Amino acid sequence: MAEPQVGTGTSRRAFLRSVGVTGGAGAMFATMGALGLAPTAAYAAEKEAPFRAPRPGDFTLQGRKGRPAKVVVIGGGIAGLTSAYELGKAGYDCTVLEARDRVGGRNLTVRGGDRLTDINGVSQTAGFSKGQYMNAGPARLAQWMVTLDYCRELGVPIEVFTNTNAGALIYNETTGMKAPVQYRTAKADVYGYVSELLSKATNAGALDAELTADDKERLLTFLKSYGSLGSDYTYTGTEHRGFSVAPGAAGTPGEKLGDVPSLSDVFAFNVGRYFSFEFGYDQAMLMFQPVGGMDRIPMAFARAIGEEKIRTSAPVTDIKNTSDGVLITYTQNGRTRTITADYCIATLAPHILAKTSHNLGTAVQTALRAVKPSYASKIGLEYKSRWWERDFRIFGGITETDLDLDHIWYPSYGHLGERGLIIGYYNTGAHSDVYSALTPAQRLERALDQGVKIHGGKYRSELAASYSHQWKLVPYLEGAWHSMPGGPDAPEYAPLNTAQGHVYFAGDYLSYLDAWQHGAISSARKVVTELHQRVLAS
Amino acid sequence: MAEPQVGTGTSRRAFLRSVGVTGGAGAMFATMGALGLAPTAAYAAEKEAPFRAPRPGDFTLQGRKGRPAKVVVIGGGIAGLTSAYELGKAGYDCTVLEARDRVGGRNLTVRGGDRLTDINGVSQTAGFSKGQYMNAGPARLAQWMVTLDYCRELGVPIEVFTNTNAGALIYNETTGMKAPVQYRTAKADVYGYVSELLSKATNAGALDAELTADDKERLLTFLKSYGSLGSDYTYTGTEHRGFSVAPGAAGTPGEKLGDVPSLSDVFAFNVGRYFSFEFGYDQAMLMFQPVGGMDRIPMAFARAIGEEKIRTSAPVTDIKNTSDGVLITYTQNGRTRTITADYCIATLAPHILAKTSHNLGTAVQTALRAVKPSYASKIGLEYKSRWWERDFRIFGGITETDLDLDHIWYPSYGHLGERGLIIGYYNTGAHSDVYSALTPAQRLERALDQGVKIHGGKYRSELAASYSHQWKLVPYLEGAWHSMPGGPDAPEYAPLNTAQGHVYFAGDYLSYLDAWQHGAISSARKVVTELHQRVLAS
Repeated sequence: MAEPQVGTGTSRRAFLRSVGVTGGAGAMFATMGALGLAPTAAYAAEKEAPFRAPRPGDFTLQGRKGRPAKVVVIGGGIAGLTSAYELGKAGYDCTVLEARDRVGGRNLTVRGGDRLTDINGVSQTAGFSKGQYMNAGPARLAQWMVTLDYCRELGVPIEVFTNTNAGALIYNETTGMKAPVQYRTAKADVYGYVSELLSKATNAGALDAELTADDKERLLTFLKSYGSLGSDYTYTGTEHRGFSVAPGAAGTPGEKLGDVPSLSDVFAFNVGRYFSFEFGYDQAMLMFQPVGGMDRIPMAFARAIGEEKIRTSAPVTDIKNTSDGVLITYTQNGRTRTITADYCIATLAPHILAKTSHNLGTAVQTALRAVKPSYASKIGLEYKSRWWERDFRIFGGITETDLDLDHIWYPSYGHLGERGLIIGYYNTGAHSDVYSALTPAQRLERALDQGVKIHGGKYRSELAASYSHQWKLVPYLEGAWHSMPGGPDAPEYAPLNTAQGHVYFAGDYLSYLDAWQHGAISSARKVVTELHQRVLAS
Repeated sequence: MAEPQVGTGTSRRAFLRSVGVTGGAGAMFATMGALGLAPTAAYAAEKEAPFRAPRPGDFTLQGRKGRPAKVVVIGGGIAGLTSAYELGKAGYDCTVLEARDRVGGRNLTVRGGDRLTDINGVSQTAGFSKGQYMNAGPARLAQWMVTLDYCRELGVPIEVFTNTNAGALIYNETTGMKAPVQYRTAKADVYGYVSELLSKATNAGALDAELTADDKERLLTFLKSYGSLGSDYTYTGTEHRGFSVAPGAAGTPGEKLGDVPSLSDVFAFNVGRYFSFEFGYDQAMLMFQPVGGMDRIPMAFARAIGEEKIRTSAPVTDIKNTSDGVLITYTQNGRTRTITADYCIATLAPHILAKTSHNLGTAVQTALRAVKPSYASKIGLEYKSRWWERDFRIFGGITETDLDLDHIWYPSYGHLGERGLIIGYYNTGAHSDVYSALTPAQRLERALDQGVKIHGGKYRSELAASYSHQWKLVPYLEGAWHSMPGGPDAPEYAPLNTAQGHVYFAGDYLSYLDAWQHGAISSARKVVTELHQRVLAS
């Protein structure tokens, strides 16, 4: 996640308050402090800047003007669906126009029988078995994300997404590693040597200027436990590394994994480069996924909005501000159609909107052109057996590599079942581009060649079906997320952060959580609030 | 997990081989090495000492003698059920005698309507709602544990058990902490300061004798990433700590959690003492639980064995070796009954078996008396709302404290639902004894008083139902696990590790995974193998 670009602390809060974004929560924080409670981010956020969904009653309050308006929402992704859903609560007459044949946008779950055609006209039909699926786009939800609130509100059951697993592997081929190593083993070795080194420096007095006697004693106690050090503060291995023979009955005490690599090897293999991932505010476990596929979220949104208000396979070809509203042109079933409304919320990807005819002005167009798409890809590999569970005892999680497949994801559902679906590559940037330049068959071959290095022959021999998804090549999306140096509040994007005539802009790119549904939802809620306040004041 | 008590390495393997426990797996390891594969423990274990379930064909093989024998299994816990299940595969005529009114032993799931009476005659009826349950005993399964293989074989679906959560809390009241802190925050601070200190020592040359120039460069790169250090290698906080205002739409970059404690405070608060827990071979995520309750495992075993072969509420009162078998006396429905068989597998808790009449001799009795029970307790707290999810954004995991409740477990099932059940204490030793001395009502009061310190008023006001389970007070079990200094292969336990006449002993206490179902299963498989080989040779 990008670092916030605006300074933190009192001055920022004062600034936000002055522009009306935040509510006051000082009393609440004081109360929590008095109780000795740690305010959690989401709870605090809710208190700090509560979202108030539009309500029918808003229009009947004494002294209120306005009435629910007619709104065209362009784009049936998460930002568009959130907009229509929230405005719909107050009786707004919303129409969602979605260019693709289903809602969800990048929230895309691919199942058996799905046929998808890329911008080059290349089609693939996923041959996955019933019950097997791949989330081609977003696949994980952090606990604090507002997306979970919508899962609750919309009745979408969730389960754990296995983002971290001590049993998953690390393999950095270019460093000279002879074999993949389990996360648990890599952590034991890195933390062991780090603890040994810091203990030595501490005991040698090298940190006397930094540490009191109490600090030193407490630090050494911690390091001994953390690094599994011996009584002389050296690291010589630990059962945290794992066992080559699992402990069992009397007579079978187990055999700790041997061959502890040297300190030099451990750091040369660079296994530690992956460790901070799980500390990320957006990536730390526990994380979650909807049961049955991420698209349960857009499907639930669509039901709540009303299917009759959503037009799919309806790409927009022109967006016009008019004197008293908007005029939107789109095509459907080969025909050109128009729709007028009081307002428009444009949630298209910015680089797609930039290619769409509009009269929003050069400032908007310049801003849109300043946003660059970034690319990512995934391949789904369905196997006849869950050999990763049986042979490797890996029940989920992610294997990290320096191969061009980047990451291998083991499934977070269907444990102990007959079949299972692995994400054989989830790669970005140049690695993604390598695969985008190949045919689907070539992608599969390359992915299998790489995966065999990690898992051996079954990675190829047990394969049942595959489907590769390159976001660069997906019609009407043509990207996975966005590159916006300076963040969404940088001056060059200002025209997109305010209504242009009757047109509002929303999407994850206009948030601090680009590529996350939380960002898309947050952006939509901001625009819904602005639009609703404008209508109420009109 | 206790450290293995027998030396590792070649000598141990040679020893085990000499006593016939292990098979040879050298070729397999060599093959895996050549493939560049990391052998996993369970896979290796299977190759090293494969368990071969008894099969009907074993008795018809040319030159084989013997016939399936009649076996009485005392105890319907996991060791007993595994024994009867595996022997049953080859046609052994097994009868399971279980003292309590249900199978499972310490694998006990408590649901609404369950009425349990303790050894003092105090009864509690759990008032939990439909769908809510507490696993009073074992609650988590590591990926490598053989228990998962039985879940697969018996068709018991599993889901993630949330053993670790960055959003759960740490609260060490006695250290002067002013409020609970999230795991993510505690880790960021500890790892930040550790990284800063080691960077300083490294840059100051204090470790030049330990590190090459390459080592130093790689170590510093790691520490910067791991500890989120600034360019000057100092720790001043990081977004890994969390946010007081979550990042959202443009205009809401979020506010990083402030008030970074000093290095001295971080180590004085001793938050780091909990960090190595998640590195444990038995405790590292990912971990799992059966969907719907841990007792799905004994229930599935019982179905597979055949309910007609299991007698519940049938406590054994006498165990006799006879010249050609065993004579077992038990009571059922107020009557004394006897059963004869060729063999007996006694899986009672050792301190209970020591109180049971038998003719197994003084060596056995002395060995049994050498095993001391240990105690643990849990209280289930059902709440009318899942306030920990709504207010604290905690979707599972464990909060660690120095209060006498020890741990608070948030449920690993039912996320986003209406109600939920927290384990309000899971404590051991002296802390467990404190609660065992109280009435159920007093236990609840004490647990609530403690929990309110962590979570505030809803911990009390939202309560719907509770049930407290003190293993010390459970009839026919009277303990949670066992204290066996020296491990199960220590000389004083030798009489239990070999058949005494026609009586075999099995249970988790006779394994290197005391208190784990994996240990009970491993012990049962060992005994099943020994008994079957004896019958085949007879």
